[in-house]
Amino acid sequence: MKDRDGIVGHFTLPAQKGMDDTVKMLCEKWGVDAIRDSDGTKLSDTIMNLGYDVYSTICLIRADQEWANANPEQCQQKYLMSFPLTCVDDAKLKIKILKGYSHEQFRIDEQHDPKKYWEVIDRTTGDVVDPQYWHYLEKDREVVVDHPVRWHVYTVNFLVYQIWESTSMYNYITNNWTGAHHKGIDPRLPETREHLLEFLDQWLKSHPNTDVVRFTSLFYQFPLIKNEARENMFLDWCGFMDPMSALAMDEFEQEMGYRLHSEDIVDMGYYNAAYRIPSKEFRDWIDFVQRFVRSYAQQCVDLVHAAGKKALFFFCDHWIGTEPYRAGFEEIGFDGVAGPCLSGVELRRISDVPGDSFKEIRLYPYFFPVNLQDEPVFVEDGDPVQECKKWWKGIRRALLRRCIDRIGFGGYLELAAQYPQFLDYVEHLADEFRTVLARTKKTMPHSVSKKVALLDVWGWSRAWMHNDNWPEGHIPECLSGLQADVTFISFDDIRQRGIDADIGVIINWGIANSAWSGGQNWIDEDVVVKLRQWIYNGGGFIGIEEPTAHEYQGRFFQLSDVLGVQKEVGNTLCWSKNFRPELSKAHYILADSGDEIDLGVTESQVYLSSETAELLAGTPEDVLLSTNTFGKGRSVYMADYKHNGENTRLFFRAVLWVGQMENEIMTWLSSNPHTDSAYYPEVKQFVVMNNSDEHQQTTVYNGTGKATQVSLAPMEMLWFKLEEINQRCS
Amino acid sequence: MKDRDGIVGHFTLPAQKGMDDTVKMLCEKWGVDAIRDSDGTKLSDTIMNLGYDVYSTICLIRADQEWANANPEQCQQKYLMSFPLTCVDDAKLKIKILKGYSHEQFRIDEQHDPKKYWEVIDRTTGDVVDPQYWHYLEKDREVVVDHPVRWHVYTVNFLVYQIWESTSMYNYITNNWTGAHHKGIDPRLPETREHLLEFLDQWLKSHPNTDVVRFTSLFYQFPLIKNEARENMFLDWCGFMDPMSALAMDEFEQEMGYRLHSEDIVDMGYYNAAYRIPSKEFRDWIDFVQRFVRSYAQQCVDLVHAAGKKALFFFCDHWIGTEPYRAGFEEIGFDGVAGPCLSGVELRRISDVPGDSFKEIRLYPYFFPVNLQDEPVFVEDGDPVQECKKWWKGIRRALLRRCIDRIGFGGYLELAAQYPQFLDYVEHLADEFRTVLARTKKTMPHSVSKKVALLDVWGWSRAWMHNDNWPEGHIPECLSGLQADVTFISFDDIRQRGIDADIGVIINWGIANSAWSGGQNWIDEDVVVKLRQWIYNGGGFIGIEEPTAHEYQGRFFQLSDVLGVQKEVGNTLCWSKNFRPELSKAHYILADSGDEIDLGVTESQVYLSSETAELLAGTPEDVLLSTNTFGKGRSVYMADYKHNGENTRLFFRAVLWVGQMENEIMTWLSSNPHTDSAYYPEVKQFVVMNNSDEHQQTTVYNGTGKATQVSLAPMEMLWFKLEEINQRCS
Repeated sequence: MKDRDGIVGHFTLPAQKGMDDTVKMLCEKWGVDAIRDSDGTKLSDTIMNLGYDVYSTICLIRADQEWANANPEQCQQKYLMSFPLTCVDDAKLKIKILKGYSHEQFRIDEQHDPKKYWEVIDRTTGDVVDPQYWHYLEKDREVVVDHPVRWHVYTVNFLVYQIWESTSMYNYITNNWTGAHHKGIDPRLPETREHLLEFLDQWLKSHPNTDVVRFTSLFYQFPLIKNEARENMFLDWCGFMDPMSALAMDEFEQEMGYRLHSEDIVDMGYYNAAYRIPSKEFRDWIDFVQRFVRSYAQQCVDLVHAAGKKALFFFCDHWIGTEPYRAGFEEIGFDGVAGPCLSGVELRRISDVPGDSFKEIRLYPYFFPVNLQDEPVFVEDGDPVQECKKWWKGIRRALLRRCIDRIGFGGYLELAAQYPQFLDYVEHLADEFRTVLARTKKTMPHSVSKKVALLDVWGWSRAWMHNDNWPEGHIPECLSGLQADVTFISFDDIRQRGIDADIGVIINWGIANSAWSGGQNWIDEDVVVKLRQWIYNGGGFIGIEEPTAHEYQGRFFQLSDVLGVQKEVGNTLCWSKNFRPELSKAHYILADSGDEIDLGVTESQVYLSSETAELLAGTPEDVLLSTNTFGKGRSVYMADYKHNGENTRLFFRAVLWVGQMENEIMTWLSSNPHTDSAYYPEVKQFVVMNNSDEHQQTTVYNGTGKATQVSLAPMEMLWFKLEEINQRCS
Repeated sequence: MKDRDGIVGHFTLPAQKGMDDTVKMLCEKWGVDAIRDSDGTKLSDTIMNLGYDVYSTICLIRADQEWANANPEQCQQKYLMSFPLTCVDDAKLKIKILKGYSHEQFRIDEQHDPKKYWEVIDRTTGDVVDPQYWHYLEKDREVVVDHPVRWHVYTVNFLVYQIWESTSMYNYITNNWTGAHHKGIDPRLPETREHLLEFLDQWLKSHPNTDVVRFTSLFYQFPLIKNEARENMFLDWCGFMDPMSALAMDEFEQEMGYRLHSEDIVDMGYYNAAYRIPSKEFRDWIDFVQRFVRSYAQQCVDLVHAAGKKALFFFCDHWIGTEPYRAGFEEIGFDGVAGPCLSGVELRRISDVPGDSFKEIRLYPYFFPVNLQDEPVFVEDGDPVQECKKWWKGIRRALLRRCIDRIGFGGYLELAAQYPQFLDYVEHLADEFRTVLARTKKTMPHSVSKKVALLDVWGWSRAWMHNDNWPEGHIPECLSGLQADVTFISFDDIRQRGIDADIGVIINWGIANSAWSGGQNWIDEDVVVKLRQWIYNGGGFIGIEEPTAHEYQGRFFQLSDVLGVQKEVGNTLCWSKNFRPELSKAHYILADSGDEIDLGVTESQVYLSSETAELLAGTPEDVLLSTNTFGKGRSVYMADYKHNGENTRLFFRAVLWVGQMENEIMTWLSSNPHTDSAYYPEVKQFVVMNNSDEHQQTTVYNGTGKATQVSLAPMEMLWFKLEEINQRCS
């Protein structure tokens, strides 16, 4: 193994059968200390005997296809809603319920009594049709409604078996796999539950060389629903559709004392996606699923431990029911948590998982021909170095805030091996990562003095679960690398225990009536009273997009008194918007910004509604950025947020200003917004790094506010001991 | 009088004292046949005796200021809502209720028992505070709430006297008038009612030379609320706030059998503006006011008639309670209706008023230094010719659809007299108008075979009442000059009598949950059933902006099955939008459009939701223009509409396409979108005109689809007899 000043390892290589020499070469070059089989590949004995830790991947619910094929009624199930159909004549209404959905992926459940488990709903009135007035015709796969109301719209909530497991389907389609479609079976069914424990026991015995069992992952995937053209139709990374089954409906009733309606899960076809405000019934369903998943996962982990191996949880794919940020996750007993990582949010999603388990990220690009966006990577016209670097930039920023233990890659090694420049870049990247680990010793960096809390419906239970491809991911991405302790709170937290004393800034963001913005929570007097009191007494509040929004009693933004702005949603068109201050160009928040503030939108229909509000960007009737005061507290409104270096700095300044921590900025700061810095007091290490592909000059400030100039090559990371940086700072 | 081939008159001149020569000159130049005094001026006997008809203006409610000043309790009243105040400490909450409102305009009503007429509302809970827990402190003009809930928001609905009449206030401010502020008194009060009839009787006797009494107008103005800086704060041209008083509250109860709450009028501070969906109570209030206004107006008109004079109703300012488009207006007995006119909509607002009364428009510019937008006109840097022409263009288009009887101007003649080019232009304009009148003899022009109906909450009762300065005015403006019979229908019309057989196209437009779009009317099964049935059987439907929108049962656009599109409002982010047809560039609707379609927006968040939908502009996830079919019916979706020549043509084609009247286009059409044309079958006259300031070439089609080329000078209007145009068409 190459000498790297004592820093090697912490790297998991996806090995591949028939590439033993490449594997050996890369183990040396990349400082690998663990190798693993990828999903769908098996390693040679030669590789297994190289002396490295061996990770073996297992996806229990599709591991024994022979058994699954012999027991198709053990497949996982799901509620689907037929697409709305308008009744246009007086005849019986015939609804081809699976129309539009992939027939390769789903088969209508004809085992369980439709009258018990399905619902036909008149979507014009919202009424559930009495089961005596409809029936299911197996031969035509149709629901027939006997006396439909002409011109009303009907849907059917029905159970399906998922006959092609989602990840398997993805791999087949992406990599042109052939052969039988893999099925996923449901451990809630007693036969499957028993079979899988036996299978795992056998599997452990037949894998004597395996050190780490990599569960990839547990039992229920987030929903990924395809149409007949095999295109994604619905994808919710936090969705709770897949643990459903006829048995789950019955067991839920036994356990909870009331029966769910299919509509509680189907949610009018919105499928309770993460941005939807959950009902009590849906929250109960989440809890019910989690109790089962954790209990059964614990049995599996116990088996692994009994075999003298470690258990690693791949925090993706079949992760539903685990929810690492909800109390109780640690009891499952995983030794490690690994996850794919495209961003700072995804880094923090892994690194912040509570507990002592080791944390590993799987970097991108996946060694597949194309990336998740179907763009070329390991094929002609592909540029795997760029593809790697663009994600690493964001990840590295968050890494400085909370480090993980290991990195790795996935996919087909043979693809990567053809790109020597990529192999060199990964060597560099791995060393960079191990330097962070070695220098920081995973200690926590300096943060500003008050905590920053993101307020939404989910709070800590879905910390860092935001989809960074969506608009709501930009704020968490910004926070993932900010020099601040970040926490996540829910409206229920505020109701139940108020606002923790260490929190100095609360952020609320997102579109009106979403789980992010909060919807009807904003007309709960308990919530608004506690927040107003907290802000009035000195708290800081940042509202982004449609914060505190729910139309009620003459207000759309319920905390317009705090924010000093209101949104025109069509109720105040006759009102002139009379507060017309000059632009406050010299505000603290704007000190590092240029003349043009680009937060991602040019219009907001948000107007100033208070004479104390200051306008920082936009116009009085199209506010893009504004501030206000409320008692001793402060607030900032932003029409949107687009993540980049300039806006990160602007946002950081907004945090400091509302949190009344303005004086803390010149502490361990790197002035150039295209750079980042961090100081680790426990180990007395300081780092400054360039997030861009250009050379950057920056002024860095030490802990006493003294400064020095630093010059950084593209993407360069510079480390200083405390005495070194203090010496340089004049 | 100058000879104009026998066409003179139909023109009302605002005369001015001390300008007798100018008046005489302009009467000749402009073909004047009536002169009038303006608001605030009195004419000389010389002018009165010139032999022309004499219009004398009277605004009864402010005509006798001596009496008004002696009886200040006779002033009109209004409910205002104090601006929301957050309770921030445990002490009693003191609300300065008039804060923010003009103290020149309003005085708090201290005559009537606040506990009976006012309401203090906790806007955090929506609860009305028990009157025993608050009181009004006259000396501080404050409402004191005894036990406010800390951090709740409070407002007070309270009665004021309006001590400065709105139009008077406008004139003072605009023209720097000085002197005592005029008051407006309330004829609902018996003393005022009696006094005004006596006053009118005397006035009629003292105006022997007056031929036409021009009521300018009746009793209650649309609300125009000013702030302390004399700026407009609230203006609703259809608003019903001003007829309110303590007595009105009591009489309403007597007449209707139940008592209104102040909140029924205050509407959370939204003041029931025209875009708000009215409650039953507010509709009752409208009816109640109308009954009174009409009854008392009839007494006034009877007096005028008894004096041998004519009564002219100025359809602006104090018009509330008349509503000419509601049944019963004609019973008041007006001989004429006059209104200010800035657009096609305002022309039709006058010309379509039911009944035999003569119709007169007051053109712009008003002979004031500045226009309504405070831009210079009759001062340095002003260009009164352009100011006149820009409005005349739009008016003239609508004039071809429904002509009026008379035109006129208003303001200070001395200002206009200083601009000879303006005097020349008005001479030309007046001749143009009189030519239309003479050629068409007020007969109706050719229209396409099916009627076009605009569907909203108000329907015919507020026909042409749209504010053309607002976005929702663009569609009515387009319709005002379209070669189609236009009608206005309400959701109640559909509920009560279905859809009239002569209607071929229904348009629904506006932002969600407005009175225009319709809000909860779209979840009334009666409405959607009747509309679906009508469209399915061949009806045409055009939806603009957020048509049929009200979130319910999994749909935002309730008629998405008809429209083939749906809007992303945050509930379907996890759903891929899979319908991705090619742009249908060759569609009938686009035949006269260039490559760029600009309907006023570039984004819509509207996506295609049906495989039968065709995309005409935008993208599948940001539809700007699309079509769909539903049974035998057709629909068009437009993300917005911006009024101009190109879009008018596009809209006309959309009307023809959804109405299945495609073959009717080459009938009496002028091909160039910057031109308009009309054919009058009863008098066999055809006109083609240029709406632009450039020369235009156009192809015109006669009744059999034969064509000829026409060349038009800027703004030129060319008339042909039927045989002339048929001869030219090959």
